[in-house]
Amino acid sequence: MRPVDIVGIGQLPVQKETDWNLRQMGAQVVRLALANAGLHTAGALYLGNMLSDDIQGQKHVAALIADEACLSGIEALQIRAAMASGAAALHTAYLAVASGAVDTAIAAGVEIMGQDGGSSNLAKALDAEREVPYGLNMLTQNALVMRDYLDCQQVPAEALALFAVNAHENARNNPNALFRERQFTVEEALHSRLIAPPIRLLDCSPICDGAAAVVLASADTLRKHRRRVRVLASSVATDRFRLADRADPLALHGAFLSAQRAYQQAGIGPEDVDLFEAHDAFTIMACLSLEAAGFAARGQGWRLAASGDICIGGRIPLSTMGGLKARGHPIGATALYQASEIFLQLNGEAGPNQVPGAGIGLMQSIGGVATTVITHILARNGSRRWF
Amino acid sequence: MRPVDIVGIGQLPVQKETDWNLRQMGAQVVRLALANAGLHTAGALYLGNMLSDDIQGQKHVAALIADEACLSGIEALQIRAAMASGAAALHTAYLAVASGAVDTAIAAGVEIMGQDGGSSNLAKALDAEREVPYGLNMLTQNALVMRDYLDCQQVPAEALALFAVNAHENARNNPNALFRERQFTVEEALHSRLIAPPIRLLDCSPICDGAAAVVLASADTLRKHRRRVRVLASSVATDRFRLADRADPLALHGAFLSAQRAYQQAGIGPEDVDLFEAHDAFTIMACLSLEAAGFAARGQGWRLAASGDICIGGRIPLSTMGGLKARGHPIGATALYQASEIFLQLNGEAGPNQVPGAGIGLMQSIGGVATTVITHILARNGSRRWF
Repeated sequence: MRPVDIVGIGQLPVQKETDWNLRQMGAQVVRLALANAGLHTAGALYLGNMLSDDIQGQKHVAALIADEACLSGIEALQIRAAMASGAAALHTAYLAVASGAVDTAIAAGVEIMGQDGGSSNLAKALDAEREVPYGLNMLTQNALVMRDYLDCQQVPAEALALFAVNAHENARNNPNALFRERQFTVEEALHSRLIAPPIRLLDCSPICDGAAAVVLASADTLRKHRRRVRVLASSVATDRFRLADRADPLALHGAFLSAQRAYQQAGIGPEDVDLFEAHDAFTIMACLSLEAAGFAARGQGWRLAASGDICIGGRIPLSTMGGLKARGHPIGATALYQASEIFLQLNGEAGPNQVPGAGIGLMQSIGGVATTVITHILARNGSRRWF
Repeated sequence: MRPVDIVGIGQLPVQKETDWNLRQMGAQVVRLALANAGLHTAGALYLGNMLSDDIQGQKHVAALIADEACLSGIEALQIRAAMASGAAALHTAYLAVASGAVDTAIAAGVEIMGQDGGSSNLAKALDAEREVPYGLNMLTQNALVMRDYLDCQQVPAEALALFAVNAHENARNNPNALFRERQFTVEEALHSRLIAPPIRLLDCSPICDGAAAVVLASADTLRKHRRRVRVLASSVATDRFRLADRADPLALHGAFLSAQRAYQQAGIGPEDVDLFEAHDAFTIMACLSLEAAGFAARGQGWRLAASGDICIGGRIPLSTMGGLKARGHPIGATALYQASEIFLQLNGEAGPNQVPGAGIGLMQSIGGVATTVITHILARNGSRRWF
């Protein structure tokens, strides 16, 4: 496989409800990423989106956005894995460049989640025949996992709330984050509205709109362009589809498999990772992802939050620009925000939230209740892992 | 790029309305294709499907079908380009194997189109803001193109009907075709029910259910497996999204671009192609595809039907196993039927419909009104193009 780099990024500010439409947001972020890379076009466009069928009545979004961005003619495909669709687009762009089929590719994500119905549309990531008709949705499933974890591990009440507090703290310095106004305390998180016990409002990422994109290029393309980040690994794994079929629902076996494959591809281990953009759609997922990706032993993920190790300056900074929790989680776009944020960190452009000496960042994206998990590992230009 | 071969296929008979559900059909066809390749698993699964969001309420179909096929753990993604989704899955599987990320991959397609609403869901391939609200759908758009063609080219009334007659003739010997019972005459086609003038019933492919899959492997994998077909080219192109924005709606510029890129990749020209599985969802599309892919001059595609050159034994056999028109067009599965049929042809296993000496087959798949067009060129094992 040819080495592949990220050479440009684009982000639109995440919003509660955008005035733009899907095509405008998608085209704008594609233009931003191309301009950021110093390009006018690319070899292909891969698009992440989850809800356009339902919310916009649109099933052909990649070609639509290519046309709106004045790129008609280009290869344009939509890639899906429920909430991990953005990372699936990034993975496909990686395959396209690594294969030699194209020298450059855009991975973009865009989502307008709509005023209502978000919840029932999101539940389509679950089993439409064996879960949804029995009242299960993303909230109930995550609540079940969180309840199990709290009971099994005898975790103090505030343990998971600290993930939310950290994310909101970090979002304050991210101009593209949805929640930039204020910090929350653990007490506020613990007394926020109960949504689906034990999940409270501050355990959840918000319904919101956004778009982000990155431009990939082979290592021998655009060689004068020094602002680049190497994709050391790109891996996808699945778990048993239904939570009920898993031997151990707290193990996130798909996240474990995906991380292991990525470490193997990159030739590194968790000890080499300097920051982690986890799929913290719910605080419990941030905690379990730390365990599945090898940053904490089983049942011990919460201790990294309690000890401050997930803060910037800590052992494994988490959600350094706010994460899904506070930057926001516009589904199909989320992983492209993650990739953009790691790009900034590894280039030393993360401002007040800069992780000192960040050389390697890991990002994970989850579809369903950790049914599909996609891991990318990125490395700084010139770091010792840059080969 | 590493050379990539198809080493196994699976097809379920196309049905008007299946008793199975999506997961069963998907898993069954994956198992069939793996068994046909002599494998128990593969490196990844890429799935084509267009309508599951609407018809089955399911947005996570690749992981669902991986689980049902006892492949959980595997990389599984859904790839979309409206009606060309199956070909998009095949293209992505090609990229994955060509890149070296995996040595084997399954490209599968499955579609259950539902009793009603097919038409409004299919219209989501068009522009939801600038076409659909004004009454446009796939039928009206194809009718517009057909009317233009008939008027511009002064084509005899029966010219396009011959594409339907040929497809139905060929479907009679395909055990997986929806329409196997009888032939139609040109007169019957010309007097079939008027659907959207000038489109008549026999100009249209049917609403139906089906699933098909192929297994890809790198050329140096499974070397003892001699029953294989080389993927000489896999290319995707887009046109301006809306018909109204195109300089020449009859040119199918996306199909032209896609074919040109494929010829360049394969190092061949249309004169080297022995059979063509076109996207004959409407007879006009079969005709225009012949022109766009270089088999006929502009405005002359219909003459290949009139002269019998599209029949088996003719210059460029078309829809040799019935095509979308008569084998059926279960959207996301269609391109995997095409690939399976060419696989049979190139291995000399096409029975009464065998194209004598078939060495190279070309297939094209269309999303929207030729907005996304995906071309694959396949070559026989041991043919002079096998390098």
